[in-house]
Amino acid sequence: MTTERCAGRARDLAMTGPARPTDRASVRRGNLGLVLRLLRDSGPRTRARIATETGLPKPTITSLVGELIERGLVRERPVERDGSIGRPGCAVEIDGSGIRGIGVEINVDYVSLIALDLRGEVTAERRLVLDVLGSTHETVLDATAQLIRQTLDALHQQGIRAVGVTLAAPGVIDLPGGVVRHAPNIGWRDIPAIDALRGRLGPSAPPLRLENDAKLGAIAEYLRASADGIHDLIYVTGETGVGGGIISGGQLLRGAAGFAGEIGHMPLDPTGHRCACGRRGCWETMVGLAALYRLAAEPDDAVHDLTVDLEQRLAGLLGRADAGDPRMLSALDQVADGLGLGLALLIDVLNPRAVVLGGYFAHLGGYLIDRVRSVVDERVMAPEAGGCQVVLSTLGFTAAARGAAHLALDAVYQDPGGSTGA
Amino acid sequence: MTTERCAGRARDLAMTGPARPTDRASVRRGNLGLVLRLLRDSGPRTRARIATETGLPKPTITSLVGELIERGLVRERPVERDGSIGRPGCAVEIDGSGIRGIGVEINVDYVSLIALDLRGEVTAERRLVLDVLGSTHETVLDATAQLIRQTLDALHQQGIRAVGVTLAAPGVIDLPGGVVRHAPNIGWRDIPAIDALRGRLGPSAPPLRLENDAKLGAIAEYLRASADGIHDLIYVTGETGVGGGIISGGQLLRGAAGFAGEIGHMPLDPTGHRCACGRRGCWETMVGLAALYRLAAEPDDAVHDLTVDLEQRLAGLLGRADAGDPRMLSALDQVADGLGLGLALLIDVLNPRAVVLGGYFAHLGGYLIDRVRSVVDERVMAPEAGGCQVVLSTLGFTAAARGAAHLALDAVYQDPGGSTGA
Repeated sequence: MTTERCAGRARDLAMTGPARPTDRASVRRGNLGLVLRLLRDSGPRTRARIATETGLPKPTITSLVGELIERGLVRERPVERDGSIGRPGCAVEIDGSGIRGIGVEINVDYVSLIALDLRGEVTAERRLVLDVLGSTHETVLDATAQLIRQTLDALHQQGIRAVGVTLAAPGVIDLPGGVVRHAPNIGWRDIPAIDALRGRLGPSAPPLRLENDAKLGAIAEYLRASADGIHDLIYVTGETGVGGGIISGGQLLRGAAGFAGEIGHMPLDPTGHRCACGRRGCWETMVGLAALYRLAAEPDDAVHDLTVDLEQRLAGLLGRADAGDPRMLSALDQVADGLGLGLALLIDVLNPRAVVLGGYFAHLGGYLIDRVRSVVDERVMAPEAGGCQVVLSTLGFTAAARGAAHLALDAVYQDPGGSTGA
Repeated sequence: MTTERCAGRARDLAMTGPARPTDRASVRRGNLGLVLRLLRDSGPRTRARIATETGLPKPTITSLVGELIERGLVRERPVERDGSIGRPGCAVEIDGSGIRGIGVEINVDYVSLIALDLRGEVTAERRLVLDVLGSTHETVLDATAQLIRQTLDALHQQGIRAVGVTLAAPGVIDLPGGVVRHAPNIGWRDIPAIDALRGRLGPSAPPLRLENDAKLGAIAEYLRASADGIHDLIYVTGETGVGGGIISGGQLLRGAAGFAGEIGHMPLDPTGHRCACGRRGCWETMVGLAALYRLAAEPDDAVHDLTVDLEQRLAGLLGRADAGDPRMLSALDQVADGLGLGLALLIDVLNPRAVVLGGYFAHLGGYLIDRVRSVVDERVMAPEAGGCQVVLSTLGFTAAARGAAHLALDAVYQDPGGSTGA
């Protein structure tokens, strides 16, 4: 399937497995999504150009665009009058105004929400400071539901439709069941988060779904990277834990049960430190936030005060590095070495075109990136690191909520004529 | 895309990326492949049943089956006369007789060839004992070309068409270029194997391609596993090196440049033994054949004599285990521990439904499997190892050549009406 998504790449193997049969109705639905995604990915263009680029007949495109306009997903683009008149040359574009996707992230010390219009532009952003680890999950879910309810009410008053809400949680997720199976950093185990939210939000709420935060961060990063023709990417986020999301051939890799991307506990140092999971030498113990604190400061140092906001603590550490604090610089070198070691392993296994570092890795990235790259170059088996570049995320700590909102919108892009479509 | 291949699974994310436009001609070609793959995967059936199962109209199926019969890919199934007469109820099936796919494996001490008919049945098997590591690549390619030529000549005389030859090599492959970039165990670096074979075989040879041996082993295993509804699988083969092939959502995972699956050099023991790659503590140094020999026997033991055939050496080791040799049993336990550790990592990252152990792991699997499973259960983060089962391959050392032959046939299954199709 990779072939179909990434023009210009070597033909990939499409071994076995039944393909979906194609009849007229499904062809029409497929082509509606095709046109909508083309407008999203490649920007406004004329019907004639859409016809050329999709290979579909012009009358078909006219009819498809007509339906998308009717559904409020696409609009004629306002043109500057420069002498040319009339519809044939008039470009169409995604109409973001009437549709929203909502993403909500629950993390160790906050709950945040982002709403995106159909164009992917942020239209609302809310952040609730909350000691999630120190609260019951009922308290957290109450607060989360309230945050979502306020947003839905505001959209409702403006006549804007929310097509879905995706909840991001830092742990192992049971996707079909909507259950957070195991999220040690917020102290959750077997919490049926989606049922709980549905109960609180009532039957009028849009479709709700749950996903792992790092996978959603990967989606947010992928939407940027794909513009550069990158379709194989690993997103690695450094927080209390180390999370991962894998995009392979333009697809989020979820694995057989949705647990793929669990990279924080790779056993890279059998004689290393004890991990929160109970084992020794997991990657998290080498490069997670706790490792950074441990390496950078004495046990009585203020940096260990977890009541201080994370970004403030990171700013403090960055200040030390900027001031040339040798212990801080040595700590960053050690983190970079550990990071490079684990990334090289992942690059060997997955051969991505890009690794994007998020969370605190991005915050302190200026001090990490060169050393990480050189360890990666040294360790990866394939020549020139298999063509992989290691880069820093620019999305800060919003990546998960942003990816979650994109995922909510994706239902429309996949099936613009479906029930969630319009 | 996973959704389209694996009915009954939760809808997977089909984030972004342009889909292929569908017009009449491509719909027809797609549906030809759909019917052919249905017959391969689900066995002989009537046209009426094909129509029901694909959702396509009966007249369309009649026309598609007609074309497949004309192309010699499908045939009416001989029926036992039990009173029912006539075509309508008559089943059709894959006709394997006129088509062959050829797979050739080059490994440390042999070159082997397997021919499969369109049904996937082995019709020819040849094996050449050759000290590949000790020979020049020209010598090896001469011998390989001769092996292929003999097979092609024999098929030609029978009026059977070879649709492709896939060469399996143990190392990092440049697929589009047909170049073996780095295969330390046979001493090859930057060898343009496909051009070299094409030169030796001449212009009348069928399409030639190159692939990594473990990836091809994964394909061979996947074709068996998919019958049980398994579409996410890792194949791990223990030989001089440790190779891996990853099937995710029914797709071979190749990565951005085709280097994915390089699992032998995961750095699992920073203080461990020196690896052939020059680093320390790679997984290969814990579970590769050299590790087994080192753990099982003194340096002057006969087991280290590499001039003895591999299967014979393994039979000797198995005999020692059967006799209760404590050093041998302890060696197997240590290999099992290392194997479980690395597999747990891969299962965390990829969340497969099955791990299939091939190569010597399968040969000695009776002594390894229980302990491997228990280490995996202990180490994997997701509950119950993420639903993953660890099993032993039954294909022995033929998996790579078999997968290679399947890959050659795949061109027909993907596009039965294409130039290679018929």
